[in-house]
Amino acid sequence: MRKYAIIGVGHVGATIAYTLVCKGIADELILIDTNVGKARAEQLDLQDAQARLDSRTIIKINDYSELTDTDILFITSGNIHALDHASGNRWAEFEYTKQIVQDIAPKVKATGFNGVVIDTMNPCDAITYYFQQATGLSKQQVFGTGTFLDTARMQKVVAEAFNCDPKNVSGYVYGEHGESQFSAWSTVQVNGIPITKLVKSHHLDLDALEAEARHGGWAVHSGKGYTSFAIATCAVKLSEAVFANARLACPVSAYSERFGTYVGQPAIIGKDGVESITKLELTAEEEAKFQNSADTIIEKFHAFDDVLPGQKAEQRKQA
Amino acid sequence: MRKYAIIGVGHVGATIAYTLVCKGIADELILIDTNVGKARAEQLDLQDAQARLDSRTIIKINDYSELTDTDILFITSGNIHALDHASGNRWAEFEYTKQIVQDIAPKVKATGFNGVVIDTMNPCDAITYYFQQATGLSKQQVFGTGTFLDTARMQKVVAEAFNCDPKNVSGYVYGEHGESQFSAWSTVQVNGIPITKLVKSHHLDLDALEAEARHGGWAVHSGKGYTSFAIATCAVKLSEAVFANARLACPVSAYSERFGTYVGQPAIIGKDGVESITKLELTAEEEAKFQNSADTIIEKFHAFDDVLPGQKAEQRKQA
Amino acid sequence: MRKYAIIGVGHVGATIAYTLVCKGIADELILIDTNVGKARAEQLDLQDAQARLDSRTIIKINDYSELTDTDILFITSGNIHALDHASGNRWAEFEYTKQIVQDIAPKVKATGFNGVVIDTMNPCDAITYYFQQATGLSKQQVFGTGTFLDTARMQKVVAEAFNCDPKNVSGYVYGEHGESQFSAWSTVQVNGIPITKLVKSHHLDLDALEAEARHGGWAVHSGKGYTSFAIATCAVKLSEAVFANARLACPVSAYSERFGTYVGQPAIIGKDGVESITKLELTAEEEAKFQNSADTIIEKFHAFDDVLPGQKAEQRKQA
Amino acid sequence: MRKYAIIGVGHVGATIAYTLVCKGIADELILIDTNVGKARAEQLDLQDAQARLDSRTIIKINDYSELTDTDILFITSGNIHALDHASGNRWAEFEYTKQIVQDIAPKVKATGFNGVVIDTMNPCDAITYYFQQATGLSKQQVFGTGTFLDTARMQKVVAEAFNCDPKNVSGYVYGEHGESQFSAWSTVQVNGIPITKLVKSHHLDLDALEAEARHGGWAVHSGKGYTSFAIATCAVKLSEAVFANARLACPVSAYSERFGTYVGQPAIIGKDGVESITKLELTAEEEAKFQNSADTIIEKFHAFDDVLPGQKAEQRKQA
Repeated sequence: MRKYAIIGVGHVGATIAYTLVCKGIADELILIDTNVGKARAEQLDLQDAQARLDSRTIIKINDYSELTDTDILFITSGNIHALDHASGNRWAEFEYTKQIVQDIAPKVKATGFNGVVIDTMNPCDAITYYFQQATGLSKQQVFGTGTFLDTARMQKVVAEAFNCDPKNVSGYVYGEHGESQFSAWSTVQVNGIPITKLVKSHHLDLDALEAEARHGGWAVHSGKGYTSFAIATCAVKLSEAVFANARLACPVSAYSERFGTYVGQPAIIGKDGVESITKLELTAEEEAKFQNSADTIIEKFHAFDDVLPGQKAEQRKQA
Repeated sequence: MRKYAIIGVGHVGATIAYTLVCKGIADELILIDTNVGKARAEQLDLQDAQARLDSRTIIKINDYSELTDTDILFITSGNIHALDHASGNRWAEFEYTKQIVQDIAPKVKATGFNGVVIDTMNPCDAITYYFQQATGLSKQQVFGTGTFLDTARMQKVVAEAFNCDPKNVSGYVYGEHGESQFSAWSTVQVNGIPITKLVKSHHLDLDALEAEARHGGWAVHSGKGYTSFAIATCAVKLSEAVFANARLACPVSAYSERFGTYVGQPAIIGKDGVESITKLELTAEEEAKFQNSADTIIEKFHAFDDVLPGQKAEQRKQA
Repeated sequence: MRKYAIIGVGHVGATIAYTLVCKGIADELILIDTNVGKARAEQLDLQDAQARLDSRTIIKINDYSELTDTDILFITSGNIHALDHASGNRWAEFEYTKQIVQDIAPKVKATGFNGVVIDTMNPCDAITYYFQQATGLSKQQVFGTGTFLDTARMQKVVAEAFNCDPKNVSGYVYGEHGESQFSAWSTVQVNGIPITKLVKSHHLDLDALEAEARHGGWAVHSGKGYTSFAIATCAVKLSEAVFANARLACPVSAYSERFGTYVGQPAIIGKDGVESITKLELTAEEEAKFQNSADTIIEKFHAFDDVLPGQKAEQRKQA
Repeated sequence: MRKYAIIGVGHVGATIAYTLVCKGIADELILIDTNVGKARAEQLDLQDAQARLDSRTIIKINDYSELTDTDILFITSGNIHALDHASGNRWAEFEYTKQIVQDIAPKVKATGFNGVVIDTMNPCDAITYYFQQATGLSKQQVFGTGTFLDTARMQKVVAEAFNCDPKNVSGYVYGEHGESQFSAWSTVQVNGIPITKLVKSHHLDLDALEAEARHGGWAVHSGKGYTSFAIATCAVKLSEAVFANARLACPVSAYSERFGTYVGQPAIIGKDGVESITKLELTAEEEAKFQNSADTIIEKFHAFDDVLPGQKAEQRKQA
C-alpha cells in the first residue's frame, strides 16, 4: 500500500494531494494543516471527487499518529506566506518557514516516522537541511525538490527556443532553488546535441535563457499569486521514483559532503530517497558558480544559528 | 486530436486545465481569461510541468479564433466572485455571471465554434440556458455539470454512512444545482440494495443525508474559499464521455421540454453532448420536488427578461 | 509499496503483468512459472518497455521467497491447457489445474505469504476453494474473479441492446463461473431503470442476452484461442480495490457459508480481500438457480475427495 | 477525437489495441484482419473489458471505409509468421509481409486515408518504405518503429549494468531494425555522463552490451514465441507524440535522403509524422556502420524490384 502524508495544504500541498488522488497514485493520504478548516475542506473536496474517479484513496486529516507507517511525507507549508513579491526572494519566507519546521519536526519525530521526506518549502535547500537536522532522519531520506523544478523550467525555455518537446532537453540546473542557481549548459543537450554547439547556428542567448528559467517561478507567481501545478508535478514524480525504487536520475536538493549543505545537484532517487549523488564534469566556470551557490546557502544559513546554537557553517560541513 | 478550450481560468478552470494536462487527456488546450496575467501564469505553470509528464499538451491563451475547431469548451468564469457566502446562494452570482455570458457568447458565436459546451458557471442551470440562447448553439450541445457534482456528493455522504466506496452508490440528485435540488431516494441503491429498504435497519436519516449532500459545496467553500477538485473531476469526466461517444448515463443540467428550462436530470452523454434524457419513475413526492425545483429556476430566470426582451418564462417553455 | 506476484504467466498472467506495468500500478512484480524460459521472456519484454513508460516496476522471476512480503498474489496457471473446446467446459481444466494447486500451494504456504490471493484459474470456484484449503489462508483473503468477468460480459451485452455505455448497466451475474451461472435480472438496471420494466418496450429476449453473456468467453476463445484482456482487466481492478481498501462492490467467487462452497456473488472488496458478502433480495426463481449453481460446484467438487480425503461435500459445508 | 486503426491483430496488433483501450488513449479503434474470427475475438475481449475501465473506446472491425477519417494507422501484420527462428533473421518475413503490403496498400489508398502510418512489420525499414511507395502517402506521414525499440533495449541493458532506471540512459541505436543495427555509443549518456568515459571505471564491454540489445528481441522470442509488450509500448508512445504534436525526439525508421532508404535514425515526431531528421555528430566508425546498415537495407531491397519494376536501388535514392 502506498501511504502518503502532506504537512501543509496550501496551494502546493493541495495540488500534490489532488494529483495523488486523481491519478490513483496514493492508496492512503493524510493531510495535516494548522488551519483545520482548510484541511477539512480539501479532504471534502477530494472525497467529493471520488465517485467520479476510477481509483480510490482513503483521505484522513490532522492525525500525526498516522505518520508512524507513512511511506512518503511531503512538507509544503508556507509557500505563499511572507513572500517578498517585489524581489522574488525566497529567503524572505525563511523567518516564517523555519518556525514551521520548529513546530512540525518534533511532532514528526515523535511518531517514529521512518519514510522519505520530500520538501517543497522555501528557501528549499535551507529548510530541507534544517528539517533533516531537526528530525534526526538520515540525509538520505530527506531531500528537497530543489532544482528539479528549475530544471523543468530550463527544459521548457530551451524547448521553446527549438520548437520541440521539453523532454527532448536533457541536462541540469544546479545550486540553490533561488537566485544563485545556474544552468550548467555543458550538461545540456537538445535532441541529443550539446546546446553549446547550437549557440551560433541558432543565435542563442544562453544567459537570457538561464534568466528566464530562473525567474520562471516569479512569472507564474506574479500572475496567479503562487505556483502550484509544476511544483506538484515534480514532487509527485519524485515520490513515484521512491515507491518503485526506480533509481531515477533527477536534480534535487540533496546533502553535499563537499559543501556541507543541501544544494541542487544530480542525484539518483530510489527507495531510500537519495541513493547517490552523480558527479558530472562541469566547466571551471560552472564549478565556481556551484561553489558560489552553495556558499550563498551556507551564508544565509547562519540565521539557523539561533536554533542550532554553536553549529556554525564550518562545523556543519562536518555534521 | 482532442482540442479543448476553457473560458475562465479561476480555480475551477485552472483545475480543469491541470487535470486535462496531468492525465494526458488533452492534445491541445486554449485558456481564455480577461485577466491576461492570470491566463499567462496558468499557461506557464502548466508548461513548466510538461518536462515531468509523460504526455504532452500544447497550451495557448486568449485567442478566440482557436475555438473554430475546438471540440469541447468549458465555461467556468466567475465561480468565486460575488458569492453570497453567508447564505450559500448561487443566484447571488447571477448578476455577475450573466454579464460574463453577454461578453463571451457573441465572441464564441463569431468563431463558428460548433463543438460541445460544458458549463460550470453558477447559477448553473440558468447560465447554461442563457449561454445556449445567446450563442444559438443547439440545446443538445450545451449542457451544465448541474447535479452531476451534487450526485457525487450524495454518493459520498451515503457511502460514508455505509462505510463503502462511493461508486457502490447509484442514483441521482435532481433539480437545480442549488437549494431546491433533491436526492431522489427512490433511485438510490447501495451495493445494489434500494436505500429505502435500509433506512430502518441502518437508522438512516435521509433528510440529513440529503442536506449534507446539498450543502457539500458550502462545506468546502467555507474552508478553502472556493471549490475546485470535485467540480473539475466531474467536468473532465463529462468531456471524456463526449470524446469517446460513450453514451454514459450522468445527471447533468440539460434542457427539459417538459419544464421549459435547463435542470439537473439523468441524461445520456455522447459525441453530440446530451444524446437523450432518461425518464425514471419517481415517486409523486419526488415529482413534486422536481416541478418545484424547475419552477424555482424559471422564476429566477425572469431576471433574464432584460437581456432576452419579450421572452417571458412561459414563452421560454415553448422556445 | 505495492508488491504483486503472479503464478502462471500464460496469456492471462502475462496480460495482468503488462497491465500492472503499463499503467504504473505495481511497484514490484514477481513472475513465477514452471516454464522458466517463458517467465524470463515475459520479464524481458516488460523490462524492454520500461524506457518508454513514465512509471517503473521492478520485475523478478521464479523466486518464491519473494512472496513473504507480497501484498497480492494472482494465481493464473493453466487457463489454456486441457480445455474442452467443443463444449466450452471449464471443468475439463480441473484435472490439470488441481495438480497445479497441489504443486504451488505448499510452496506459497512455506513462504509465510499473508496477503490477498486473486484466482483466475478454472474451474474458478472450485480451484479458489481448493487453493484456500490447501494453503490454510483465510477464506477472506482468498477469492476468485468468478462472475466479475461474466457480469462485465452481461453489462456489455445489455449495453449493446440499449446502445449505451456498459457502465450504465448495473446488476449481477451469480453462481458458477461456468455453465450454471445466471444473470439475476431482478438486480439489473439500465440507465437507472430496472431491465424487467424494459423487456416489452424494447422487445428484449432476456434468455438470449443471458446466453450471450454466459458464452462470451467461448466466443473470444474460439477466435483467439484464449481470453486475456477482459479477465486481466477484471483481476487488476479487484487488486486495486484491495490496495486502496476501497470496499468496492463486486461480484466475485467468495466463500458462501450458506452453500458451503465458493460461488459467484456480490461482495465488498477491501484490504483484507472479501470484507463481506452482500445479500440481495432475489426472486424465488433466481434463488433456485443460485442453489442449483452452488450444487453444481459442490457436486463436481467430489473430485477433490481424492486430495482432501474424508472430506465429503456435506462435510465441507461445515468447514 | 482520437481515431486509430490497426491492420493485423496478431500479438503486436492486439497488444497495441489493448494498450490504447486500457489506458483510455483511443476514442475510436478499428481492427482489421484477414482472419475475421480473430478480429472479432479481439473486439469482443476488449469490449468485455470496458465495464471495468474508466475510459471508453468504440471498437469496430474489418471496415476499410473507416480509414477515411482515421488519424493514426498501425500496420502490424505478419510479425509471427515465417520467422527464421534459428537465425533471428527478420528478412525471412519479407516474402510474406511484402505480399501483405501488396494486399493492404491499395485498400488503404482507396479510402483516401490521409493520417499517419506507424509500421511495426518486419523487415521494418523495407516494409515501411514499400508501404509508403505503394500507397503514395508522403514520406513524412509513413514511418516505422525501427530502432525505437532497439534503443529501448539498449537503454535497459545499459541501465542494468549501472543499476539505474532505463530512462536515465539517453542516446540512440541507429540503422536497420535487424542485424546490421548498432549502438552509437558516442551519443549515449548514463545519468548525464558519456558512457565512453565510464568504460574503464565500470569494466564495460560495449560490444557485449550492444549484442545484448540487438538480440533482445530474440531472447524474448525464444521464450514466448513472439514479442508484444515492448513493441506495443513503443508504437503507442509514437502515436501519442503525433496526436499531441509533441515534436518528441525518437529514433524511428524514417526516410533518409542521404541513403535513399528508410533507416533507423533520430527524428522529431509531431502531428505530420516525421517532422524532421536530427543529424548528430557520430564518430567515423559509427558513420561507417550507419552507411553499412543502410546499404544492407538497400541491397535486400532488390527483392522489391519485382514489385516496383525498373526501380533499382540507385534509382530509389532519387525517388
